[in-house]
Amino acid sequence: MDSLTLYIGNKNYSSWSFRPWLAMTAAGIPFEEDLIPFDFPAGNPRFKEISPTGRVPVLHHGNLRVWESLAIIEYAAEIFPDHPVWPESAKDRAVARSISMEMLSGFRALRNACPMNMRRSKGRIKLLDGVAGDVERISSIWKECLDRSGGPFLFGGFSAADAMFAPVVNRFEIYELVEEPQVLAYMTAVKNHSAWLKWQEAALAETWIVPEDEA
Amino acid sequence: MDSLTLYIGNKNYSSWSFRPWLAMTAAGIPFEEDLIPFDFPAGNPRFKEISPTGRVPVLHHGNLRVWESLAIIEYAAEIFPDHPVWPESAKDRAVARSISMEMLSGFRALRNACPMNMRRSKGRIKLLDGVAGDVERISSIWKECLDRSGGPFLFGGFSAADAMFAPVVNRFEIYELVEEPQVLAYMTAVKNHSAWLKWQEAALAETWIVPEDEA
Repeated sequence: MDSLTLYIGNKNYSSWSFRPWLAMTAAGIPFEEDLIPFDFPAGNPRFKEISPTGRVPVLHHGNLRVWESLAIIEYAAEIFPDHPVWPESAKDRAVARSISMEMLSGFRALRNACPMNMRRSKGRIKLLDGVAGDVERISSIWKECLDRSGGPFLFGGFSAADAMFAPVVNRFEIYELVEEPQVLAYMTAVKNHSAWLKWQEAALAETWIVPEDEA
Repeated sequence: MDSLTLYIGNKNYSSWSFRPWLAMTAAGIPFEEDLIPFDFPAGNPRFKEISPTGRVPVLHHGNLRVWESLAIIEYAAEIFPDHPVWPESAKDRAVARSISMEMLSGFRALRNACPMNMRRSKGRIKLLDGVAGDVERISSIWKECLDRSGGPFLFGGFSAADAMFAPVVNRFEIYELVEEPQVLAYMTAVKNHSAWLKWQEAALAETWIVPEDEA
């Protein structure tokens, strides 16, 4: 089989790249990684060459191109059935996909106001309308899943749903958006996952600065 | 097995309800339908009772709740494997999911400026920034898929990807946003599908008016 190549952006900032990278790494799915930095004012011209949308992440597998973080995860899950990325029960999987797609399609206020930034030290910023509602809804999703599964992750073991919310774990932490012990304990579990630590180490070593993501 | 109940909004306007309804109906998946009209200024209070997000569509299956149009489609596909909603090949499925998730997460300019409206007669409106780019990208997705599959649908036979773009077929038609023969031929194929015609008939019979969706 051809090997998979996942094209990603800067590890410090690229929240959408982080999701499939984390889901695949945590599941032990083998892939090559090609990091294309956001280092041109109009975007790196390589993005257009490698991606049908001109954006990362994009997965290459032979001549196949798969884009959108969650579609990449679904494809990797399909071709590596021995490396499960979704919860085992059909009902848990359905909820895991529901919350993953709610993340994919929503929470714009939080995403726009509070960029992911792995290097940033903690500190609050002035929040715009809508951010508090997003924080509340995400916290409520997490608490409901954790109550049902018993933790430490949303569906017990680490799954694609945790990967989809991982950039939010960073945002909640660095902008100090949450205080509830159950939510903080979940964030700690995610931040201590070996796949998170591996990404974080590389992010901290990066030197590129993207001014508009430095909130 | 408990029967599935799909809660939807008005057929004339509810583009997100249309997607799973169409995918499941076209695939012959059995389900009950419960239509909750948008008929209160602050939203129908039933939405909050039946849905974790307070929005439709939501699927009930016993005590399970599945929300987000595409997560509903994935769940229905999983529990009715004899009624395929995705293309048969893994590569086609990967592209089908990529474009479906691009639809789920994007094209906000088009979605905001040009509401789905099954009853509306054709006529252009003044378009805001970003709509032309969305129309161009969607047209390009469709043409690439049709070139590869040979049509009449994006992956040959009707699939969940066609269902995800069905509300766009309505928007392109009623606001007269496209002229290319290949794109128009695809739209005609979708509009002639028996599942589309069944939804359309019910939409035309509705009498509720949602002023903000009358562009």
